[in-house]
Amino acid sequence: MSAPLLDQAALSVINVGVETFTQSVRETGGQALQLDWKPPGDGDAGLAWTLAQLTADDTDAACLGNRIDRANATAVERILAAQPMLVDVALHARDVWPDMGRTLLHAGAPIAWEGMCGPMQGAMVGALLYEGWADTPQAAEAELARGAIRFAQCHDYHAVGPMAGIISPSMPVFVVRNASQGNVAYSNMSEGIGRVLRFGANGPDVITRLRWIETVLAPTLRAAVRATGGIDLKAIQAQALLMGDEVHSRNAAATLQFLAAIAEPLAGADVDRKAIRETLGYIAGNSQFFLNLSMASSKATMDAAHGIDTCGVVTAIARNGVTTAIRVSGLGGEWFEAPSDMPIGLFFPGHTQADANPDLGDSAICETAGFGGFSLAASPALVQLVGGSVNEAIGYSREMYEITITRNPALSLPNLDFAGAPCGIDIRKVVDNGIRPAVTTGIAHRKAGIGQIGAGIVRTPMDCFVKALTAFAKRAAVR
Amino acid sequence: MSAPLLDQAALSVINVGVETFTQSVRETGGQALQLDWKPPGDGDAGLAWTLAQLTADDTDAACLGNRIDRANATAVERILAAQPMLVDVALHARDVWPDMGRTLLHAGAPIAWEGMCGPMQGAMVGALLYEGWADTPQAAEAELARGAIRFAQCHDYHAVGPMAGIISPSMPVFVVRNASQGNVAYSNMSEGIGRVLRFGANGPDVITRLRWIETVLAPTLRAAVRATGGIDLKAIQAQALLMGDEVHSRNAAATLQFLAAIAEPLAGADVDRKAIRETLGYIAGNSQFFLNLSMASSKATMDAAHGIDTCGVVTAIARNGVTTAIRVSGLGGEWFEAPSDMPIGLFFPGHTQADANPDLGDSAICETAGFGGFSLAASPALVQLVGGSVNEAIGYSREMYEITITRNPALSLPNLDFAGAPCGIDIRKVVDNGIRPAVTTGIAHRKAGIGQIGAGIVRTPMDCFVKALTAFAKRAAVR
Repeated sequence: MSAPLLDQAALSVINVGVETFTQSVRETGGQALQLDWKPPGDGDAGLAWTLAQLTADDTDAACLGNRIDRANATAVERILAAQPMLVDVALHARDVWPDMGRTLLHAGAPIAWEGMCGPMQGAMVGALLYEGWADTPQAAEAELARGAIRFAQCHDYHAVGPMAGIISPSMPVFVVRNASQGNVAYSNMSEGIGRVLRFGANGPDVITRLRWIETVLAPTLRAAVRATGGIDLKAIQAQALLMGDEVHSRNAAATLQFLAAIAEPLAGADVDRKAIRETLGYIAGNSQFFLNLSMASSKATMDAAHGIDTCGVVTAIARNGVTTAIRVSGLGGEWFEAPSDMPIGLFFPGHTQADANPDLGDSAICETAGFGGFSLAASPALVQLVGGSVNEAIGYSREMYEITITRNPALSLPNLDFAGAPCGIDIRKVVDNGIRPAVTTGIAHRKAGIGQIGAGIVRTPMDCFVKALTAFAKRAAVR
Repeated sequence: MSAPLLDQAALSVINVGVETFTQSVRETGGQALQLDWKPPGDGDAGLAWTLAQLTADDTDAACLGNRIDRANATAVERILAAQPMLVDVALHARDVWPDMGRTLLHAGAPIAWEGMCGPMQGAMVGALLYEGWADTPQAAEAELARGAIRFAQCHDYHAVGPMAGIISPSMPVFVVRNASQGNVAYSNMSEGIGRVLRFGANGPDVITRLRWIETVLAPTLRAAVRATGGIDLKAIQAQALLMGDEVHSRNAAATLQFLAAIAEPLAGADVDRKAIRETLGYIAGNSQFFLNLSMASSKATMDAAHGIDTCGVVTAIARNGVTTAIRVSGLGGEWFEAPSDMPIGLFFPGHTQADANPDLGDSAICETAGFGGFSLAASPALVQLVGGSVNEAIGYSREMYEITITRNPALSLPNLDFAGAPCGIDIRKVVDNGIRPAVTTGIAHRKAGIGQIGAGIVRTPMDCFVKALTAFAKRAAVR
């Protein structure tokens, strides 16, 4: 028995560059594979040269590229070793930062009142009403416009806030200590979903809920958290990855794990029973309650990797609703900014992409620590919220391996046969491979006062990384 | 450009039957695919004839096969429509069944004291000690051996119990009402893991815990459950499938969902605060707490599909530790039994397959309702407990589609792109395809008093289905 001859000779082609070549091959019945390759720096010769200078060289252990590799290895060691613990609840932000005065912390890089997006302006107005610094939204806007309020970045206070990310002096904050390095991070508390300050809503319902958080939730949780001696947030995040969360846009399992950790201490706390009941009900009824804790946990983790000399690991991605900005371990407090992309996703009934505000919030700190878009393989259920297929969700995690330094064995992704989550974004790899970090995110209405209108996925702009890489090369050359 | 000739002619063979043929083909460099096909009834001509009689025939709407199809359709309609709600907690089984007297309910089909497996005997002894019917294990054994205690099947009381499945008159039971059909099902309460009665342990610690369940847990939960007006168990099961549970051997997410549903009502219940704290802690600390509720929910669902004339849907799979038995909707209360298989899985340190008891417990009711092995695709995390790969887990669900009638749209499996779970085991398909139901299960030590030693996967014996099919044909022919 012999195999039949092939009826016809068929071309098999691998094409690099102009994709239309593949079409003509396919039209004649041949097979053509388009190789997704771009020259380093996307064809920018200067950038390619910069990249080459920062690349490891086997023949010279002392070369800059090798020094960066070693510094990056130190950074990821600290990320892997992190032990973020919820150790306390501060009843007011001003208890943590007594010099706050009339300061409002916000998400992302610095931005002036006039330049702020609608949701951030709406949240600022709400914060003034909540603080009693203004009696009406109009009065609040006037105060803000005349410069009576100081603005600062959450990140500069070792804090993070989702969406607009407003932390005002009277708001309670979670206190998360990284037991391995001793550094501390903070976040505000979840307001639930719907009409909430972080999405720019500022009506009486929003202010009333903020007061309840301050006067009931915070003291009740504080008593319970103190009784526990500390709650291991990384363990909750790791468990949640086995339970369908990516612990950024989906925190259903993590919230329930937190509820399980706090329920008994809450019931035993020396506070009145109504407060206990309300607190249990509030956490149980808010599947994103853990988001703020996931962010503070990620911030405590990434701050430990920040400030390492010659280190090119991204330690923060933050969006103020106009720009997206990154910080790099070896580049101090400088933000490398570019205009925010528009998240692509699914919208609540009555809303469309045209209503969406550009990418907003400090929550992308989760991605820098390996959650969210980096762990999307763990969260098939999230595609029901943000769109796409399960295979696409898995594809995001696979792609993020291309721009990260290692895999975090403590954070395993079941659908990748329990491989560790991508860990430690290397700015060189982002520029070299032309792959931008994928971030899962809520979508705010672009106007103040409306709130969340959807959820989706967004990419961090490439220009952030190009600017960071250029600054990195310049600083290194100076020495 | 022309394709090169193949260097050598290679055989490509699809083989049916004796598998060694494929080997010789492969040895000569050829490709051979073994087709996994068996004749209906595995070559048994009589069985094949029976199967043919029960198979639908397009040319005769009134034929038996078509009548079975219609009856099966009614059964799965009821399964899909089921609304199992936890509506109450009975403080004692005897409150539900006042005539119990000195009866012990157990898992699986009827079995005499002498024939029982070690774990069931151990659990029986423990139940006598708990009830105060004996003061020592020796006295208890003597009572049991002399026939002083009546035995009955949980299933005959619309109840289910995991592993040994003992329900004694003083034990509290969950009361689950199927709101769509009005039928009610019951189960005992989870003792947690480790040394527990259901695995045959009966020491003082076991008895003490049973008393705590009776005097603290049950009244506390009762107050909370009554305050809720009913907890939707199917909604919890469906959510849990999105969160890594298959809701039989893994109930981590379902337990937390239950905790979230009960926490606020518990805190508001008119019972003392210590009981509330202990109850919250007990549920939060026992990731299999929901198993008994998943079983009662499945029982309430499948009882609604039982007793339909000419219906060949399996409504129960139950194991007494010696035999595995099934019930079929159109065949009344008769059990179709065969010796239990050995579960294959992973063992706790210090134990091996040789220590394992054959398959045991009523918990396979979960599989008949589409959970457990049928929804294993939902639970990649479970393979860490029972062994195997994620792809194998997904493969079990795919395989179970071959022996079921429909897909349950309310129970979606993320890793199969949200396809509905396999629903409604058709005894004809099991025999015809030679595919046995896959059941996820805990593994008990074969000796009394030791407890759980592992977890794994087991198959329901084919003989159960052959016997049921034969009885089905006989009964149908009589009419």
